[in-house]
Amino acid sequence: MKFTILTLFKDMYDGFLNTSIIAKAIKKGIVEVKLVNIRDYPLDAYGHVDDTPYGGGAGMLMSVKPIYEALKANYDPNAHILLTSPKANPFTQEKAVELAKKEHIIIICGHYEGVDARVEMLADEKISIGDYVLTGGELPSMVVMDSIIRLLDNAISKDSLEDESYTDGLLEYPQYTRPYDFMSHKVPDILLSGHHEKIRRYRLKMSLLETFIYRKDLLKNRKFTKEEKAIIKEIVDEFERS
Amino acid sequence: MKFTILTLFKDMYDGFLNTSIIAKAIKKGIVEVKLVNIRDYPLDAYGHVDDTPYGGGAGMLMSVKPIYEALKANYDPNAHILLTSPKANPFTQEKAVELAKKEHIIIICGHYEGVDARVEMLADEKISIGDYVLTGGELPSMVVMDSIIRLLDNAISKDSLEDESYTDGLLEYPQYTRPYDFMSHKVPDILLSGHHEKIRRYRLKMSLLETFIYRKDLLKNRKFTKEEKAIIKEIVDEFERS
Repeated sequence: MKFTILTLFKDMYDGFLNTSIIAKAIKKGIVEVKLVNIRDYPLDAYGHVDDTPYGGGAGMLMSVKPIYEALKANYDPNAHILLTSPKANPFTQEKAVELAKKEHIIIICGHYEGVDARVEMLADEKISIGDYVLTGGELPSMVVMDSIIRLLDNAISKDSLEDESYTDGLLEYPQYTRPYDFMSHKVPDILLSGHHEKIRRYRLKMSLLETFIYRKDLLKNRKFTKEEKAIIKEIVDEFERS
Repeated sequence: MKFTILTLFKDMYDGFLNTSIIAKAIKKGIVEVKLVNIRDYPLDAYGHVDDTPYGGGAGMLMSVKPIYEALKANYDPNAHILLTSPKANPFTQEKAVELAKKEHIIIICGHYEGVDARVEMLADEKISIGDYVLTGGELPSMVVMDSIIRLLDNAISKDSLEDESYTDGLLEYPQYTRPYDFMSHKVPDILLSGHHEKIRRYRLKMSLLETFIYRKDLLKNRKFTKEEKAIIKEIVDEFERS
């Protein structure tokens, strides 16, 4: 899979591309990342890529032209073009799974001062990673890449992904490792019992509880299994007794 | 303001800390960022910071002990401690504004294989930047820092922030800069009219429209001004006529 990133701040990707999972995935040839400096396609001989807004207002706006020229120079009819923008549907895990099937993703990074509205026409899709304001689209582009790359075959160990999908649609259950006793907070006894079936059921129960506490929205359209329904009844009974 | 980041991947911050707004804010002394390598507080002489999960399961878990030791070595009674986690309320602009008032924020970065559940006890608050899975808490910690730092006095030009808050609670209106004519997509005439009052009203209308299209949720509890109500009526009339 290939990513092409159009940015004003190529250097910002140094750490991201050279560390951990991403560096490994690049080394293994699973993913290829090309950084394109929008400044290489300036408006004029002075190297400008931005200008003042029509109609007045503070700050400078990125012009559509340098971005268009950068896209043209990296033209690929198979590429799916994303634009980071607060005016977009929120990025979700579902979207990450969908995008992980693409051959080539181009991400145009917005900039905190703003971007000419006509840039939107150049993108297939706008992406917002959350309801907060950032200085630019560089971190969002890394978030999108990170969430996609970890889904690609062999990027991370299969076990990790499988374990995660075991509780599909639920948050993960709490996990514990050594030390057993940390400042008198001990690991729940059941996890030391060696009773695999009980441990599995305990973890499913905890997953349901965690999801209920933090992400009720995930439960809304869920089709609960018979076992899950029994566990929920158990939880309700426990609450009522206490 | 001070940030202390507890991470396994210090190098991942290279680009982020050396580029753009953040580098400038550090240079100006507005913000100080300390990176702490959790591996400096290992479980054993072999430098381990993780171990297998109690009760079985794939992968390794980060132990609570090294994180606790790293926190102790950077103890500050005034620090507000965040843990990046999918089990958390979503990070929002409102939360960024709230956190921008803190003196010192410590962020504990989770790791894709998982973290011992008892780490949660060490944090004041858990933060999730969105509904997607990432390989670690490093990018989320940068997102949180970026959104906070840009709010600090003198971190970015006051004009930019003021212009943004003009449409408070609404998405920004579309903006345009040169070229006037881009592949026959021209800048809306009104923005060239020089009529400030008309431009202001046009932009408010576009903000309301953009928000309606992309972020209806922002309008739910909004107290509309008289002018906004008039503009909404105008939009509805235009739709009905078309």
